[in-house]
Amino acid sequence: MRSFASDNNTGVHPEILKAIVSANEGHAVAYGDDPYTERAIATFKKHFGKNIEVFFVFNGTAANVLSLKALTKSYQGILCSKTSHIHNDECGAPELFTGCKLIPIETSDGKLTTEKLGWHLQGVGDQHHVQPGAVSITQSTELGTVYSVEEIREISKFCRENNLYLHMDGARAANGAVSLGTELRAFTADAGVDVLSFGGTKNGLLGAEAVVFFKPELARDFKFIRKQAMQLSSKMRFIAVQFEALFAHNLWKTNAETANRMAQRLAKEISIFPQLEITQKVQANGVFVKIPPPVISKLRENFFFYTWDEKKSEVRWMTSFDTTEQDILDFVSALKLALN
Amino acid sequence: MRSFASDNNTGVHPEILKAIVSANEGHAVAYGDDPYTERAIATFKKHFGKNIEVFFVFNGTAANVLSLKALTKSYQGILCSKTSHIHNDECGAPELFTGCKLIPIETSDGKLTTEKLGWHLQGVGDQHHVQPGAVSITQSTELGTVYSVEEIREISKFCRENNLYLHMDGARAANGAVSLGTELRAFTADAGVDVLSFGGTKNGLLGAEAVVFFKPELARDFKFIRKQAMQLSSKMRFIAVQFEALFAHNLWKTNAETANRMAQRLAKEISIFPQLEITQKVQANGVFVKIPPPVISKLRENFFFYTWDEKKSEVRWMTSFDTTEQDILDFVSALKLALN
Amino acid sequence: MRSFASDNNTGVHPEILKAIVSANEGHAVAYGDDPYTERAIATFKKHFGKNIEVFFVFNGTAANVLSLKALTKSYQGILCSKTSHIHNDECGAPELFTGCKLIPIETSDGKLTTEKLGWHLQGVGDQHHVQPGAVSITQSTELGTVYSVEEIREISKFCRENNLYLHMDGARAANGAVSLGTELRAFTADAGVDVLSFGGTKNGLLGAEAVVFFKPELARDFKFIRKQAMQLSSKMRFIAVQFEALFAHNLWKTNAETANRMAQRLAKEISIFPQLEITQKVQANGVFVKIPPPVISKLRENFFFYTWDEKKSEVRWMTSFDTTEQDILDFVSALKLALN
Amino acid sequence: MRSFASDNNTGVHPEILKAIVSANEGHAVAYGDDPYTERAIATFKKHFGKNIEVFFVFNGTAANVLSLKALTKSYQGILCSKTSHIHNDECGAPELFTGCKLIPIETSDGKLTTEKLGWHLQGVGDQHHVQPGAVSITQSTELGTVYSVEEIREISKFCRENNLYLHMDGARAANGAVSLGTELRAFTADAGVDVLSFGGTKNGLLGAEAVVFFKPELARDFKFIRKQAMQLSSKMRFIAVQFEALFAHNLWKTNAETANRMAQRLAKEISIFPQLEITQKVQANGVFVKIPPPVISKLRENFFFYTWDEKKSEVRWMTSFDTTEQDILDFVSALKLALN
Repeated sequence: MRSFASDNNTGVHPEILKAIVSANEGHAVAYGDDPYTERAIATFKKHFGKNIEVFFVFNGTAANVLSLKALTKSYQGILCSKTSHIHNDECGAPELFTGCKLIPIETSDGKLTTEKLGWHLQGVGDQHHVQPGAVSITQSTELGTVYSVEEIREISKFCRENNLYLHMDGARAANGAVSLGTELRAFTADAGVDVLSFGGTKNGLLGAEAVVFFKPELARDFKFIRKQAMQLSSKMRFIAVQFEALFAHNLWKTNAETANRMAQRLAKEISIFPQLEITQKVQANGVFVKIPPPVISKLRENFFFYTWDEKKSEVRWMTSFDTTEQDILDFVSALKLALN
Repeated sequence: MRSFASDNNTGVHPEILKAIVSANEGHAVAYGDDPYTERAIATFKKHFGKNIEVFFVFNGTAANVLSLKALTKSYQGILCSKTSHIHNDECGAPELFTGCKLIPIETSDGKLTTEKLGWHLQGVGDQHHVQPGAVSITQSTELGTVYSVEEIREISKFCRENNLYLHMDGARAANGAVSLGTELRAFTADAGVDVLSFGGTKNGLLGAEAVVFFKPELARDFKFIRKQAMQLSSKMRFIAVQFEALFAHNLWKTNAETANRMAQRLAKEISIFPQLEITQKVQANGVFVKIPPPVISKLRENFFFYTWDEKKSEVRWMTSFDTTEQDILDFVSALKLALN
Repeated sequence: MRSFASDNNTGVHPEILKAIVSANEGHAVAYGDDPYTERAIATFKKHFGKNIEVFFVFNGTAANVLSLKALTKSYQGILCSKTSHIHNDECGAPELFTGCKLIPIETSDGKLTTEKLGWHLQGVGDQHHVQPGAVSITQSTELGTVYSVEEIREISKFCRENNLYLHMDGARAANGAVSLGTELRAFTADAGVDVLSFGGTKNGLLGAEAVVFFKPELARDFKFIRKQAMQLSSKMRFIAVQFEALFAHNLWKTNAETANRMAQRLAKEISIFPQLEITQKVQANGVFVKIPPPVISKLRENFFFYTWDEKKSEVRWMTSFDTTEQDILDFVSALKLALN
Repeated sequence: MRSFASDNNTGVHPEILKAIVSANEGHAVAYGDDPYTERAIATFKKHFGKNIEVFFVFNGTAANVLSLKALTKSYQGILCSKTSHIHNDECGAPELFTGCKLIPIETSDGKLTTEKLGWHLQGVGDQHHVQPGAVSITQSTELGTVYSVEEIREISKFCRENNLYLHMDGARAANGAVSLGTELRAFTADAGVDVLSFGGTKNGLLGAEAVVFFKPELARDFKFIRKQAMQLSSKMRFIAVQFEALFAHNLWKTNAETANRMAQRLAKEISIFPQLEITQKVQANGVFVKIPPPVISKLRENFFFYTWDEKKSEVRWMTSFDTTEQDILDFVSALKLALN
């Protein structure tokens, strides 16, 4: 059974699993000193440019938090969207591990703007206030929207002008790239992002995320940060090989394309129901919908998904690399029934 | 090619990989609310008793550090062997995440005793001193030795008398059990251990460790500690299923038996060389040997392994679930050549 | 020259200084094991009840942060007003030392209500969210307003119903008491506050704050928390004696009365100017005023004070124990001139 | 009554108290933007050179911990003597606030040497080990001994060669200077120390310590570190003025001279008793003595002092700026009685 609850609920793409199995030969030096890791890093360099540093970690929370740790000092603040994952869904991990205060900024679509960032640049130089240290944006956002390359460039320019580092939570960077129709580097390395959390797990991996530094000097001591943060895998080859396979034959892209296309399809199918209101632009693999509470209950008898905003009766439906047209049709049928 | 460098350099036992592949069906709710995790926990209860709480994490560093976090307050000290992994090989992760000071105790064989613990119980009640909060022992130890059930019971009694919690780093608990010829619970739950880091990775898993609480009240808020420590896996089923498979058909035992037996075999084979000195009792899967420096260099041309103590010219050879008699014979042949 | 910038800019009340001088006799055991500290604590018990625990610290930031540390675990959140000192003026000290996320709540007058607290009680039991752990209120508030006893009782009831601890930042608790016309315990111990940061510095001390626990069991390990937080004074007698003197002859009250009365007087004097708008109720020792920007500049030629809200052209004027009628008259004269 | 328990048990030198009283005039901008602080810093520059940065904090624990925070990253280790105050008497404050592991080194006299430091420079570049980051030495040491200028220069050279910063805990730096017969800068700024905790409290201040940076670039963000560490005093002038007075008329020197001379005198007086053994060179203001347990008990009936090493029956007697010849004579009389 497949649901629209989360792209985390999927399994592993068969090609990834095959790669894991194929890496299970003989011994390999632990902790990343192995040829699998070397090859996986080389693959990242093909996509993001040669002048990068890449480190693998276990999950998205760690990719974000460790990235931010590398960019900040404990007395700083991290500006982020109020809907960001780092602010809402990481149980205070960023605060605990970086010591920083998160400065959440209200947005309608999950996207920060330089104007809003400007309003929150407060107390610079004043010893009583946390000092703005970094901006974190999410691509594609937690609301299924996507920053344009130009928008990211502007934020990056703002950051440079204000001595801020720019982090991107790219748990769904692949969905962003497909949505924009660009290469991954176009809105990351080439748009002035300093560090990227590059997500694999939501895009078909068993469990693997990467921290990608576009300014190698920022990564100088990252291996120690990773280890002290309990994120150094001993049998690293089994993480590395997932990324190698993800980039082979453009699997990252195909997977994201499927997810995005299915979100479009779902949005289109439900647009005919006047009782529903799609609340965000469907630009990646999420569809946010206002829907009458009784319909939610009815639909949940057969499908598991999350309410996004209780007060607004707004739900979130996520598609993923393994969503099929039939899944959509079944879901829409159930929805139709529930609406009547 | 297989080495004696570390039981971390092994791959994944085929049965474990099979289990991972078999878990890749449809969707499952993320973060542990899935039937795989439920079954894996049930399996732990069979081995360790019903009144336990079990949490899966990514690696051994995390299993140790999170266990200790659950047992301590930041102004406390953690008594451990000077050769313990938490003191030497976790890049300060215990200090950073718990805030505690580690109090390393000199031992000859990696094993703490109540006498030595008593000497280090200092400053109790004095606000200037860190307050002794927990004892951490390793089974089997980092030196390949094994605590008897009685020794652990005595330490546990000491802990209760002195208001200390007892943690066991069981990265190689399976090797300890096989060495003692007991069930896992005999030297953990039944011997008065409060929290166990139960290792899977060194014993044939792809990457999975468990934190096992023998006093459920200590685990009350552990799910938040785990999340804030960035150790909550989204596709948890793929971690859980590894443990399920490890306990099925006693694979945990068979794997550890092979490793321990091969260590015995290795020790026996090399005992005939008068230039070598085995420095520790071979009770689990490690063999510690003093060996002339030129022989080390020679041997390293074909085999990768670690020097344990540069000054003493002491090396560490680890066996693992996949070590074969042929591996031993090849290694011993090379050793013989190097010695001549 | 005296300003209306802050009650921190004052010196020390002569009686306090006299007490410090008088304590300078012979040796006294360091770190609080001295008769001065014993007597000071006894004095607190007279005012707050016998069943309390009192600890002295150096400053208000520490009193707040250590109080909160004693009440929370690192994965929790602390609900507070968006205008609170802990959120704005402590450079991230609460986050760094407790690990907690602060959850700032918008208010018009600096006062939390149970309704607003209710809206922010989110994610309880959900491992992805910080868990609400404590509420922190300020009395008198950072906006010069004062909670009624009834309002605090309601918040306390809400806290008990929701397993939250209640902390009061009482940097200006004396001003609150005077404003309410009650004893100090009426709106603290007797109203269900769990821990109070009791301020002395803004009320005429050289530098001394107290952490007062109304549930002694919460203080069980506080001496270690204080020491590890670098807040244990060696020559403690000179801190303790300040509190002893503050409570002698009701100096705490007289000082706060002067400050509050002068704020009333200032508010009254300026109420005749139509170009000014007093933006908050004047209930303690602060007066918040909207005032045209050119007038601010003019006035600043002779008086130093802080702009509270640049956008609104709102300033903050604080009175203190040493403010005189003449100070007010001089200031109002200058204001009159600046307005013309 | 005066004891030999600790130089912390003294009161305040009358000149210091006079200075505090004299600073109590009118208002002064809080948090260090006042002329008193400016003048005090200027005074430090006269003693330590112009190219320094100075910050005042409340106590010695903070001076040490904040210095170390400024010099290290959380995954580093701090090499120190096993008898150092940071290791024994700060309840884990260094670990909690810096995240670092302390690496205690055994010494006979409290003094580190480059040879011993070399032995403990382990795991450099290895991600599993904490990375050596700083060395902390104490002058004069916790055992009453004093490093020569040359010894400090050698340690400093070692630090530079090994990318380590050098911190000096100078809680008793004045006693060190007097012992060496040099200016304060001779064994700090001019000997290659990077940051100094300069102690005032044990030398006659009410409570004030300074963090002195000899490389200003290391201090760039220290004001935020201080604030976030809860060590920013609001009425700073009363801390600053203590230092101003300490340096006026060489009070720092006179006070330390008295203390040191009295220690010499005490040592001389007791050297005639064959039952006593002075265990450390008396170079500053501490005398360490082995003395039969019954004599300790007897002596304690009238004098309070600390046992340093229970097992050895070794006690510590500290002299201070207010110790008089009569104090010594009285104590020695009592000792004589106790010995018979």
